[in-house]
Formats: sequence, C-alpha cells, structure tokens
Amino acid sequence: MDLTVRRAGRLLTMAGEPLADAAVVVRGGRVVWTGPDRDLPPDAPEQTLDAEGACVVPGFVDAHTHLMFAGVRREEFVARLAGTSYDGGGIRTTVAATAAASDAELLDLAQARVDSALGHGTTTMEVKSGYGLTVESELRLLRLVGELGRRTPVRLEATYLGAHVVPAGRDRDGYVDEVVATLPQAAAAGARWADVFCDEGVFTVDEARRILTAAGSHGLGLRLHAEEIARTGAAGLAAELGCASADHLEHVSAQDARAMAAAGVVAVLLPTVTLSLRSQAWGHAAVLREAGVELALATDCNPGTSWCESMPYAIQLACLAMGLSVAEAFRAATVGAAHSLRRDDVGHLGVGAHGDLVVLAAEHEADVVAHLGGRAVTSTVVSGVLAR
Amino acid sequence: MDLTVRRAGRLLTMAGEPLADAAVVVRGGRVVWTGPDRDLPPDAPEQTLDAEGACVVPGFVDAHTHLMFAGVRREEFVARLAGTSYDGGGIRTTVAATAAASDAELLDLAQARVDSALGHGTTTMEVKSGYGLTVESELRLLRLVGELGRRTPVRLEATYLGAHVVPAGRDRDGYVDEVVATLPQAAAAGARWADVFCDEGVFTVDEARRILTAAGSHGLGLRLHAEEIARTGAAGLAAELGCASADHLEHVSAQDARAMAAAGVVAVLLPTVTLSLRSQAWGHAAVLREAGVELALATDCNPGTSWCESMPYAIQLACLAMGLSVAEAFRAATVGAAHSLRRDDVGHLGVGAHGDLVVLAAEHEADVVAHLGGRAVTSTVVSGVLAR
Repeated sequence: MDLTVRRAGRLLTMAGEPLADAAVVVRGGRVVWTGPDRDLPPDAPEQTLDAEGACVVPGFVDAHTHLMFAGVRREEFVARLAGTSYDGGGIRTTVAATAAASDAELLDLAQARVDSALGHGTTTMEVKSGYGLTVESELRLLRLVGELGRRTPVRLEATYLGAHVVPAGRDRDGYVDEVVATLPQAAAAGARWADVFCDEGVFTVDEARRILTAAGSHGLGLRLHAEEIARTGAAGLAAELGCASADHLEHVSAQDARAMAAAGVVAVLLPTVTLSLRSQAWGHAAVLREAGVELALATDCNPGTSWCESMPYAIQLACLAMGLSVAEAFRAATVGAAHSLRRDDVGHLGVGAHGDLVVLAAEHEADVVAHLGGRAVTSTVVSGVLAR
Repeated sequence: MDLTVRRAGRLLTMAGEPLADAAVVVRGGRVVWTGPDRDLPPDAPEQTLDAEGACVVPGFVDAHTHLMFAGVRREEFVARLAGTSYDGGGIRTTVAATAAASDAELLDLAQARVDSALGHGTTTMEVKSGYGLTVESELRLLRLVGELGRRTPVRLEATYLGAHVVPAGRDRDGYVDEVVATLPQAAAAGARWADVFCDEGVFTVDEARRILTAAGSHGLGLRLHAEEIARTGAAGLAAELGCASADHLEHVSAQDARAMAAAGVVAVLLPTVTLSLRSQAWGHAAVLREAGVELALATDCNPGTSWCESMPYAIQLACLAMGLSVAEAFRAATVGAAHSLRRDDVGHLGVGAHGDLVVLAAEHEADVVAHLGGRAVTSTVVSGVLAR
C-alpha cells in the first residue's frame, strides 16, 4: 500500500501538466505526492518501482464491459468477414452458453479476462449483467461480479443490464415489468448502475425511460446504450434523465450531443465495436467533441461485437480510426472514463486519488499509439501494490 | 533441426485442407510428414513441441519492411493526429538519424525489431535499404542486413531501395544515374531484390522502368512501391516488367490489376499504413481480388507510416478494415507472401518446406483475428528449432 515510483521519464497525472523525470509517492493506497524525482521527499517509502525512464499514466478505467459470459461466437465472426448473412443467434447464443456454465466456470472465464485487462493496464472496470435475461440468472451474474471483485485487485463497478434484449418468446411489456420489478434485488445483489440497450429492434426510448426512472428511484446510477444501430433519440433521453453515461452514440445528432453536454452526460466511445462490426462509423467522436461532451473510452468486452480486454488497443483505434488526438484519447481512457462512473478517486494521480498507475512500455504515450501490435504496458499498480 | 509437433488441434499447412488433431514432423530442418496425430510415424523425432490443442500455421512471411533505421518520428505522428500540417521532414528525418547512428547501434535497433517480429510469428522477412541515399550509405545498410541475417534465425531477403526518395539538393536525373550505377555493388553487398518508390512526387514510371530494367540485367529480382499516393500507372509497369511484387496499390485501377494477374505479379497489401496515415484507403483489396491477383500481406515496418513488427496485427486489419476473409488473410500472410518473394520453400508446411511454424495462442486462427489486442502467438519455430 506504500510505494515510491521513481524515474518516470514522463508522468501524466491528468491533474495538471505532464511532468518530466518525475516520481509518485503512494501511502496507504493513496497518492500523497507527485513531483520531480530530484525533489522526492526524504521520507518516501522504501518500497520502490523503478520506471527506468518510461512514461507513467493513471491506471486505465474501462467504462463499459460485458465480461461475465461463457461461449464463443466464432461462426458468426467468420461468416461476417466472409460476407454471408448468417448471424448465429447473436446475444441469445451467449445467453444459452452462459446458462449452461457453472458458477465456477463463469468465474474462471471472467477472471482470465480481468487478469488480461490488468496486464493491459486496466485498474477500474465496469461489468454488466445481461446474458441471463431471467430474474434469477441476472441476479446470479451480479453476484458473480461481486465474487469476481473479491478475487481481483481491479476495482469493479457492477451494472444491471436485464434490459439487454427481449428474451425469445417473452411478451415485451411483461419483460419490461419484470426488469423494473427486479431493480431492488439487483441493487441488493451489488449493482451500482442500471443500463438499457435502447435502440432500433431492442428497447424503445419510452421503455428505457420507464426502466431508468425506476432505477434512479431505487438509488441506482444510470447508463444507457444509445444510438448504436440507428438514431432513436436515446442520447436525448440520457440528457433528460441525467444519465452518468450514454454509450456507443454512432448515430448521435448534434442537437442531442449538445443536450448531453448541457446535462453533464459523459459519452463512452467504443471504437473496437466499429472495427469488429466493420460498420465504418467513425464520425460521431467529432460530433460529440464539437458539442463539448466529455469523452470516455471503453473496450465493450463481449463475445460477439468486441472481443477485447485491452484499453491500449481501444486508445490506438480511438486515435487512428476515430480521429482523437493522443492527449484526448489518454484523457478519455482515464479521467474521462472515471467521470462516466461518477468517480473522482480514480483515473488521475492527483493527491488523494487511489494509487493506481501504469508504467507504459514506452518513454512517451504517443509511442503506444504509434507502435501497432506492440506491447503497451510493462507494469500495473493498484492501490500502491504491483499487480502485474 | 529435428522436431515433432504434437497435438495441434488444428493445422493449416497451406498445402491442402486444414487438419484436425494433427502433428508435424521436421527432420534436418525440413517438413517430412504432416497428418493426424494418431498416425504419427513411430520413428518421429523424440524432441517434441506439444501444441496443447492450439492452432498451428506456417511461419509468417513479412514481404515488405524498412527495418534498418534509427530515430523516431513522434512529433510527426502526434501532429498528424492533432490535425496540423507539420510533416516533420518525413523520410529525410530518418535518413539523418540513420546516418548519425553507428553500425552497432543500427544493428541493435534492427535486431530488437526482428526479435519482436519473431515473437509475433515471423520467420521470413524482406528488409529494404533506403534510409541511406548515397552510394556508400546504401551499401552500408545492405551489409548490415547481411550481418543481421547472421544474428537471427529469421530468413532475411535484402532489397536495394536506393530509389526511395530523391535526396534533398540532388539533381534527379543524376540521382537515377547513381542508383543504376550502384546496382552491381548492391547485388555484391547481398541484395537479392531491387525496389523503387514509384509514385506522385517520388520517382516517375519512366525512371522506375529504367532502374528496374537495369536491375533485372544484373540478376536482381524486381519489386515496386506502386499506386500508394496517386494513380500513376506503376502497377501496369510492374506487370510490363514481370515484377515479383507490386506493393501498396491503394489507387490501382481494375485494368492494371488485371494486367498484374496476367503477369503473375503478387500484390503486397499493407493495411497498417492505411491505419497509420488515416487515409481510409481500404477498397483496393477488393479490386485486386476481383481481378484474380494473388494477395500477400506485410507490415511495412518503418518509423513514419507503419511502426509495426506484428503480422497478426496486419492480418487482423486486413480482415476487419480491408475486408479479407480469415482464410484469405492467413493465406496472404504465409504462402501468398512467399510467392511475392518467389519462394516455394517457405509459407507452407508441405513436405520439403522449411520447418518454420507458429503455435497460435488460440484453437482456431479466426480467434486471433477476433480477439483484439490479445496475444496471438505462443511459440515460433524456425527450421525445426524453437526460436521464441
């Protein structure tokens, strides 16, 4: 919990300008000092991590994942690349595989993914339910996210996404009623957030309003899958309800983006989804930036549309495909993503923040973006403890 | 040099259909048998590599790199992403940094890159000169490629690219004369290939014809940077001269593509360049495929427009951004790339081929494409020897 990080050739605290030849002091798991290495306080902890001149950044905050699942969707993926129309069943395929897996199997699969994310520098991660779609199975997934949180140093934020898709054979009004009725149990099972997949062919704006309004009344924070498949006005709903985040946003209008900015809704960008789906939807980041919306990045880790645990990969694509600057992308992957989770204790290295940081495998964060396919992270520290 | 690879859950030999539950026998560095693991010959070598159910593919052939350079081009990269017009000097910046580096420094830098490539599964790699631009400095780079080849198990193919750009302050006719006059020395210094950057603002089709015609008369094989910046007819020249490869081809016409197919010119696709430059030029692969041109993949490893040593990353982008199927991309990265180097002894695992192979970190090659930012390669074998 006490650690001195020395010889950071470059340090991005996200709480001020970048520092050269810097050091970080963590005590009791929290940042107590950052500054020039030569000015290191004499009582700094003996336990030292030598960054050897590399760039040090806050631990990445992955603001949107669907980590808790079983099964693979290889046939669907191969068919998509080969240009055939086979969809393989989509989310429902994963629901079936997840139902067939034991708790131990699901936990092992999720733990391997979160370990991988930790190796890629993620220290805080949002994790959604949503591959259950019955009351019991959704609560099971939330309990497993809680158990996963006890097994990993990564800070997990659990989100109830019962409204992921209307289950096959269910009446949609009845299913929305069930999701609303499940909200208090979801909170009791550990969910801090509620989310709805509000899009064409999934849940309508009115259904999402009903679910999220109820969620807020039960003390859950609000997130929203918005404007991914088509422009539905979901981003406007996120502004209306004061959601912490609206996620995806490929089809957001400039007007709804301005409403998001005014309401303080953070935009969670998911560039790996655009690549995986080959949808070429890269323009929305510029619309959101122009409107003054705060940007966050996430992997959307899921088996069908973004099999990815790597925030550096998301950063790379955010820059090279989506057009963010290097500075914008690193901000979105740290402090922007933290704000999308309404947290000011992670995503930066200001005094008082958790001692979560990453030693990059480069002397400058731009090299991590430019070096395609290269290793991005040397070490990941959580609460002042070397975790990977 | 003698090795038995067992328990390949899936084996792509590129010399026949994929095999399930397969084994490979290498003797004296060459493949002598592939088949079902249960039919393994009783006299197979005792030295064994257990693939543990993973997918095994031929070692990757990287058909286009500019590996031998010093210096970084970070300012140019950051400025490009930030949308400013600063170009930082481009190739000439690297020429200056390369001239300032000692032989030992250049070799260490290049060796680190080739080691990285080996870790990503590359077992054969083309390496160009071109950051010298004087007679002596170009020959120095070719000699260093030869020295690098003695230090690494990766099979290197050296290419003389004196015609990379007209050096600042030089008369262009005089420089073309010098490049032509240097060809015999380049061959003596170890070059097997000659290449010209034939494009708008670089060398013209007539200049490229003159250089490559002379190169052929000195026994050098012919390659051509073609149609990257603008449509100049360079691909037609590659067909006219019977080049082994035409590379880039972002602006190739359907007619020139058909001429390439008829002349047996292999198209070397460089998807990481399109991503790095944010040029959105993804459509040419479809034009080339439609014309029946054989496709190859490469990283174009260079400090300015594609800092990448990873063939799995090139494969991933070839599929997800360029639209190749998984099967097309793996073929292009192995046997297609070998054909672009006019080699039939690498890029496949038919009997008689070099025992160069890769154990993927996945049970199916499609998973390496789908799993963004994940580790792609577990082990790399060259000539039946575990190299990484």
